[in-house]
Amino acid sequence: MSVAALTGDALARACAEAMLSRDHASQALGIVLDDARPGFARVSLAITQAMVNGHAIAHGGVTFTLADSAFAFACNSRNEPNVALQASISYVNAARLGDRLVAEAQERSSKGRTGVCDITVTRGDGELVALFRGVCYRIKGTVLEGASS
Amino acid sequence: MSVAALTGDALARACAEAMLSRDHASQALGIVLDDARPGFARVSLAITQAMVNGHAIAHGGVTFTLADSAFAFACNSRNEPNVALQASISYVNAARLGDRLVAEAQERSSKGRTGVCDITVTRGDGELVALFRGVCYRIKGTVLEGASS
Amino acid sequence: MSVAALTGDALARACAEAMLSRDHASQALGIVLDDARPGFARVSLAITQAMVNGHAIAHGGVTFTLADSAFAFACNSRNEPNVALQASISYVNAARLGDRLVAEAQERSSKGRTGVCDITVTRGDGELVALFRGVCYRIKGTVLEGASS
Amino acid sequence: MSVAALTGDALARACAEAMLSRDHASQALGIVLDDARPGFARVSLAITQAMVNGHAIAHGGVTFTLADSAFAFACNSRNEPNVALQASISYVNAARLGDRLVAEAQERSSKGRTGVCDITVTRGDGELVALFRGVCYRIKGTVLEGASS
Repeated sequence: MSVAALTGDALARACAEAMLSRDHASQALGIVLDDARPGFARVSLAITQAMVNGHAIAHGGVTFTLADSAFAFACNSRNEPNVALQASISYVNAARLGDRLVAEAQERSSKGRTGVCDITVTRGDGELVALFRGVCYRIKGTVLEGASS
Repeated sequence: MSVAALTGDALARACAEAMLSRDHASQALGIVLDDARPGFARVSLAITQAMVNGHAIAHGGVTFTLADSAFAFACNSRNEPNVALQASISYVNAARLGDRLVAEAQERSSKGRTGVCDITVTRGDGELVALFRGVCYRIKGTVLEGASS
Repeated sequence: MSVAALTGDALARACAEAMLSRDHASQALGIVLDDARPGFARVSLAITQAMVNGHAIAHGGVTFTLADSAFAFACNSRNEPNVALQASISYVNAARLGDRLVAEAQERSSKGRTGVCDITVTRGDGELVALFRGVCYRIKGTVLEGASS
Repeated sequence: MSVAALTGDALARACAEAMLSRDHASQALGIVLDDARPGFARVSLAITQAMVNGHAIAHGGVTFTLADSAFAFACNSRNEPNVALQASISYVNAARLGDRLVAEAQERSSKGRTGVCDITVTRGDGELVALFRGVCYRIKGTVLEGASS
């Protein structure tokens, strides 16, 4: 089936997989794509020794990077490429060595060329780790190569 | 000389070096401490293949992590441990494979137990890459082990 | 009944009413308290001629002020006084002359002395106007005079 | 002299004055335009009884509104209309009854259709009150009527 025939969840999944396959930073951390739908994405990550400090607490940048990847997948889920303009993160609980973090991104608004997306980062036990909010801006082109958006 | 005798720039430097030596995430990225003074820090990072996507553009999480490390060093520069409560980043120009990014953190306010810090991320050519602002919160203890704050 | 005997929704309501009665800025705008519960508040406001520009669009500061009032009521709903450290707002749709805006604040986290609260601002027709997120910090004392927190 | 002949500081001043003359909210608060240049604006405001609570502390929404007006004047200073997408404020010191607040807005970036602006709010005595950062987005048209941008 050609890329152009994909729609809805299948298109969202294909866009996220294509982005992740090209994204060496997310791969290096071990970020896994768990789900993708139009305006939505879920990714996860295990906190390893290489991501923590001497007190076994993950660097805030690791939590941010996971949330930012979810953000990117959600706002690129319709094969229209969007870039992040601005992002904010509030830290609620520490992420620790051995935790599996899950980031869920949900688009809250998409109007004209700009959008807003909310991402929650939780631990495996359901405890909230961080709240992330991002503003994106649509640029020209397509996410998938060989596709017409 | 004992840790307790350090003050000013020497104390700021010792705190930043101690934090970096315990911070596996910053080390894994190759973040280098260039300068530390009370309420100030400068760190840098070379963008490698492992940090970019298929278009040779660095993941926003890498830029954030560099800025976040500068933030941490600046707000822990007086041997009083502070944790990040909230951080925001605005992306201005893409960081690309081969760029050397420099993040400079400057404390803007420190009152009671909370503070605000501004971080600018620039490329080697002086071009602005991102603007980061963080809010920190002082917790008990000391940054340096064996020190009395 | 003495103030000290209030709990739950009644305490939240009493705290919000006390704050609003002392808050000349909210009163001047005509902000109305619609609901208050522990960690929650709903307020509303009609956009008048004095709040708009020549294109009949409300000043972003009006929308922010409404959301900020909801934020304050939600994070002071347990008779423990909290002040705003930081707040962010994303504008989604314009608020116009004649619109009735509703702001709902929901506490997302409260740990130690800091908390995070999410506020959505909508029009009467349910359309999203803005997303607001605030970080608060607990100070000493009580919201209600003559109360023991 | 026709509007079309204005450039630089004169154009920035004309844009800010036109916006303020149409902005009933800023006028109602008594916001005064002190200076406008390309990418820059300074406005001020006296904190009156109508802007404070029972402890004589100004509503955070008042400080935000002043900063937001400076933001709007700075990012519309070239007769190209921009709207606010997102704004963040960090509160540093309380603004009190009788204080004269000054907000200075400085554009930090303007690329394609988006920009970032930093606004500092200070008291007459030079004390920092708040730090504000805004992201704007350029729309079609002109700020001045009868002008060609």
